[in-house]
Amino acid sequence: MLDFLFKPRSVAVMGASNNTFSIGNRVVKNLLDYGFKGQIYPINPKESEILGLKAYPSVLDVPKPVDIVCIAVKSTLVPQMVEDCGKQGVKFVIIHTAGFREMGGEGAKLEDALLENARKYGVRVYGPNSQGIMNSDPDVSVYANFTFTPLGRGKASILAQSGGVAEMINLNLRKMGSGFRIYASHGNASDVNTNNILDYLGDDAETHTIMMHIESMKDTPGFIERCRRIAKDKSILAIRTGRTAAAAKAVSSHTGSLMQQDSLTDAIFRRAGVLRFQTVEEMVAAGYAFANQPVPSGPNVGIIANAGGPGIIAIDECVGNGLSLAKFSEETKAKLRAGLYAETYVENPIDVAATATADHFALALSCLDEDPGVDSILLTMVTPFFVDCEAIARRIAETAPKLKKPIIAVVMTNENWVGTVQTIKNAGIPVYDYPEMASRVLAAMVRYGEIRKQLAEAPAQVKGNQARAREILAQCPGGFISQAAAFDILAAYGIPVARTLPVSSGAGIPVQIPYPAVLKVDSADVVHKSDAGGVKMNIADETALKAALADMARRFPGAKFVVQEQCATGTEVIMGFKCAEGVGPVLMFGLGGIYVEALNDVSFRLAPLSSPEAARMVRAIRAFPLLSGTRGRTPADVPAIERLLVAISQMAVDLPEILEMDLNPVFVYADGAKVVDIRIKK
Amino acid sequence: MLDFLFKPRSVAVMGASNNTFSIGNRVVKNLLDYGFKGQIYPINPKESEILGLKAYPSVLDVPKPVDIVCIAVKSTLVPQMVEDCGKQGVKFVIIHTAGFREMGGEGAKLEDALLENARKYGVRVYGPNSQGIMNSDPDVSVYANFTFTPLGRGKASILAQSGGVAEMINLNLRKMGSGFRIYASHGNASDVNTNNILDYLGDDAETHTIMMHIESMKDTPGFIERCRRIAKDKSILAIRTGRTAAAAKAVSSHTGSLMQQDSLTDAIFRRAGVLRFQTVEEMVAAGYAFANQPVPSGPNVGIIANAGGPGIIAIDECVGNGLSLAKFSEETKAKLRAGLYAETYVENPIDVAATATADHFALALSCLDEDPGVDSILLTMVTPFFVDCEAIARRIAETAPKLKKPIIAVVMTNENWVGTVQTIKNAGIPVYDYPEMASRVLAAMVRYGEIRKQLAEAPAQVKGNQARAREILAQCPGGFISQAAAFDILAAYGIPVARTLPVSSGAGIPVQIPYPAVLKVDSADVVHKSDAGGVKMNIADETALKAALADMARRFPGAKFVVQEQCATGTEVIMGFKCAEGVGPVLMFGLGGIYVEALNDVSFRLAPLSSPEAARMVRAIRAFPLLSGTRGRTPADVPAIERLLVAISQMAVDLPEILEMDLNPVFVYADGAKVVDIRIKK
Repeated sequence: MLDFLFKPRSVAVMGASNNTFSIGNRVVKNLLDYGFKGQIYPINPKESEILGLKAYPSVLDVPKPVDIVCIAVKSTLVPQMVEDCGKQGVKFVIIHTAGFREMGGEGAKLEDALLENARKYGVRVYGPNSQGIMNSDPDVSVYANFTFTPLGRGKASILAQSGGVAEMINLNLRKMGSGFRIYASHGNASDVNTNNILDYLGDDAETHTIMMHIESMKDTPGFIERCRRIAKDKSILAIRTGRTAAAAKAVSSHTGSLMQQDSLTDAIFRRAGVLRFQTVEEMVAAGYAFANQPVPSGPNVGIIANAGGPGIIAIDECVGNGLSLAKFSEETKAKLRAGLYAETYVENPIDVAATATADHFALALSCLDEDPGVDSILLTMVTPFFVDCEAIARRIAETAPKLKKPIIAVVMTNENWVGTVQTIKNAGIPVYDYPEMASRVLAAMVRYGEIRKQLAEAPAQVKGNQARAREILAQCPGGFISQAAAFDILAAYGIPVARTLPVSSGAGIPVQIPYPAVLKVDSADVVHKSDAGGVKMNIADETALKAALADMARRFPGAKFVVQEQCATGTEVIMGFKCAEGVGPVLMFGLGGIYVEALNDVSFRLAPLSSPEAARMVRAIRAFPLLSGTRGRTPADVPAIERLLVAISQMAVDLPEILEMDLNPVFVYADGAKVVDIRIKK
Repeated sequence: MLDFLFKPRSVAVMGASNNTFSIGNRVVKNLLDYGFKGQIYPINPKESEILGLKAYPSVLDVPKPVDIVCIAVKSTLVPQMVEDCGKQGVKFVIIHTAGFREMGGEGAKLEDALLENARKYGVRVYGPNSQGIMNSDPDVSVYANFTFTPLGRGKASILAQSGGVAEMINLNLRKMGSGFRIYASHGNASDVNTNNILDYLGDDAETHTIMMHIESMKDTPGFIERCRRIAKDKSILAIRTGRTAAAAKAVSSHTGSLMQQDSLTDAIFRRAGVLRFQTVEEMVAAGYAFANQPVPSGPNVGIIANAGGPGIIAIDECVGNGLSLAKFSEETKAKLRAGLYAETYVENPIDVAATATADHFALALSCLDEDPGVDSILLTMVTPFFVDCEAIARRIAETAPKLKKPIIAVVMTNENWVGTVQTIKNAGIPVYDYPEMASRVLAAMVRYGEIRKQLAEAPAQVKGNQARAREILAQCPGGFISQAAAFDILAAYGIPVARTLPVSSGAGIPVQIPYPAVLKVDSADVVHKSDAGGVKMNIADETALKAALADMARRFPGAKFVVQEQCATGTEVIMGFKCAEGVGPVLMFGLGGIYVEALNDVSFRLAPLSSPEAARMVRAIRAFPLLSGTRGRTPADVPAIERLLVAISQMAVDLPEILEMDLNPVFVYADGAKVVDIRIKK
């Protein structure tokens, strides 16, 4: 659908001029400089020629077809220009001009006006306030963008909301020695948006990896769905900026009050299969590797070094980032021992010594490639003056295409060995300055391998009585529903609950509740029941219950009440979900009491959960050792917690009427778990 | 003392040759290439001339004085060569040759032999297995080192155990556009060691910052003492590698069992005033700034940006790394409003817009420099083609020397603006590629500012009855001392303890203990008393105590016992110390039970503590909110905890007989704290 945008047959430029400091001039220049294969039409009513090209007074004078019109004229003129484009049958306008919705008020009106004109004629709008697009495909070679970094070819595509960040990614990718495939910085995204471009990049066979910058997200479910589809084949790397800006919404529920904007991003990216980075630098470093090397099939790295210190740093960083040092087979060690210097350490990392020759490097590489215990290779080398570094680099480059496993290199050298480094890079081996960065990149690749496996997991199916639950919900007014109804809904999904029944001072006392029992006020007005004196424990018998009921009825006039079996105290956990605007239900889990409230130790996931994801969600909290039976403690029934999480995930999917649900506490025992208190808001 | 090493009048090279692949050749070449101001004497019995210099058959033939002899001959020949150097009155030998103690066995013997010869003549030994030294002082310009990176001048000195890491630091500092002052990679450090070199760098006025790489540490107390002295004036940056390698020693005490090698490094560096980095990349980036800019006097950063996206990244990273966004004064805002474009956002960050001119940048810089609410300036800029970037860079460079506050810059550009970037760098402004890295560097500088303040803190003095405590200790046999004695020792330091007295089944029952009481077995053989059934709680009266005593005496034949008042349960904390070999007493603190045992949530510090350091130590655990009264909890008496920590710090200093001390648990109340159980090992 975006073919005319990214593979245009022609680009016209409104606002093209001979003033070299103007955007219109720069776009024409860029199109010329980087050899656009289609037609370029400068538009300027006052000029006859711009940068050696014939200039047209209006888009209406330009020969058809006009696939793209780049617009760099005053913002107030843009709606009329779009109308003209419509009349001429233009497919896409790329609006570079700023001063629209991002400025609020008048700008927003202007944006609405141009969009209306575009819609009238079926013109698609890219921008406004956008830098533009580039496509390095040699059959296209389009640089419809006013920025200044040369177009270089590569296999990573860049999709960034901010032009500045897009440029930062491109510049630094270039410094590493790589170009890009497609570059899109779409600014206000009034029409063509992130999701549309993602679709296009997903279908582009030459895009091996996608590097994104996100500031804000529209249509999150659509984003997730696309990313999950695309990420099965190509890695999606992303950085989200503005993470410290937004404060958590003040809501009364635990789930809500702990929902940090940033943990929501984590949950979204996790569900989407998107690999999140905290810095652009790490994303660029990783993108460079993802575009050039396969993903390791496991965490076991084999390290080859010709200097000790940097090798040790590589171990620290690999292990510290979750990788394992591969254990070499006896066969590997024997081959290494036979072919390397006598004093060589043939464990991992292999220190081939500073005096190692090209043969030694080639042997070490092929040995690790053949060892089934090795999933990836990390090569760290200095360039000693006393060996033929050029020959080593050439041999590494010759060996690289034969390797079945991913390889990442670190070359610690200076400007005299630029050619040597280039030889290695030309063989498709990503080369870094620091072993730390190389190790982190490798760790990111392994993490993506895990993500890819997780994307294949099916959502866990729980058969609940959806009809019954919706029937109960339909009978409840909006806001917090009654305890009695809430417990009934859980029961409809087979969730183990403390036996709970409505009770009222006027009517009879239910006989099904065993003693000791607990009496609780059941009112939407009383959110913190215990604090308000709305819970009475240790009720020994019916007489005591009646007395307690009478007392509470006096203190909470008009309120309803429930009586509940008093459960044995177990390990307290909290779980629930909350519908985040524009995102959908966000599940949360944590240990009860202080862990959630004071230590903020919670994990978030988007519904629906797979069973393994439920297991990971439980293990994601720092306090997990308290559940798993560390240091002689009785382990809690973790599978029971996982089943509960899967059940509430199913409820989140089945029952869109529920805005918030809080199971707090759930008592977890050595065998089983029971929900003791619950709050549901519809 | 090391003047002849770092400012030699002459360097002789043993093993000098005309083979360009030999170390001896390279050292002579490096001395020549980088313009050594002193005499160069190649030594080779078979050559008359090397690289155009007269060669001498032996060091004994070289004209005196010979300050340094670089030795690059076979390891087995080295002891004899050192003997010759001694005879010739050589001040220092730099032994490049490897194959000594690092190889064990025979190598160690060889190292001992050469050291003996050196001592005999008073020759100081640098190495063996060392890369060498460099001094970029133009009056010296010595490159007595076999590595390959050009010598460039700078204000940071490099001190690295590993030659590979030293080279990595130097190379990357060079890529940033900086050289070094002194470079020392000392390998085995058999004689001249890290501490000696630190002394020298501390005294070198032209060394503004020291960048260290440490793998292992000898004489830790000496290291700490020097660093504390030096760090008051010059920043010391360090990376320690091998942090994942060493497993914690298996000891029975809590303090010991939680002592990770790495947290010990943290504690040492913290006490020493050394700023620790996790990656060489961040250390190099920071070292470059430390060498060129003053330390910010506080955390408030003012950001100037000419592109929005990178500005947002800078906020994220600054805030995420503990900095604050400065609030500008009304005066500042008025001046900015008057001088910048009308639409400019004059809050922090100031977006001067991509079209900003040199005047705009200069105004923003001087406004922030004058605003008392701003402690440092972070400038992030792209190089738009439509402004005169050269003029902007020149103006920034002109403004820089007038600024009183530190400034760090990010320039996002490509190879076409290398000169522009250089203009800014030449003004002493560190320039980075990424706003993230620049923000982290600034955060590191602010952290060092705090370290410098902390170095001025005096150790808290607690007046304990040291004589009495040592008397009690003297009477105890080695190993775990009795509970009774341990409580007496605490009492000697005025530490609030649960009243505890010895009791035995044969003798009378002490009358001073109030009931209910607790009976505990008091035996070095019973480390985990509760688990062994050696604690009986809730003893109501004397009769019950006698019965309990009789029962325990039967179960623990020959053991002693204590009776203790049964304290009200408070918040449980654990504290103590353990003498780490070669380091001294390491204090630990954590919340009791699961927090320490299962969640590993502990803080470590070296004795002696200052009062503010004790406060920081308490706040360093993740679970601190549980003590501070979050979410309506009653706050625990945190000052009481701090006093206890200061007291045990004093005991650690006063009572070197104590190898381990464990106060576990200490009950902390809303008002005060009480030690309930204690274990002391001597």
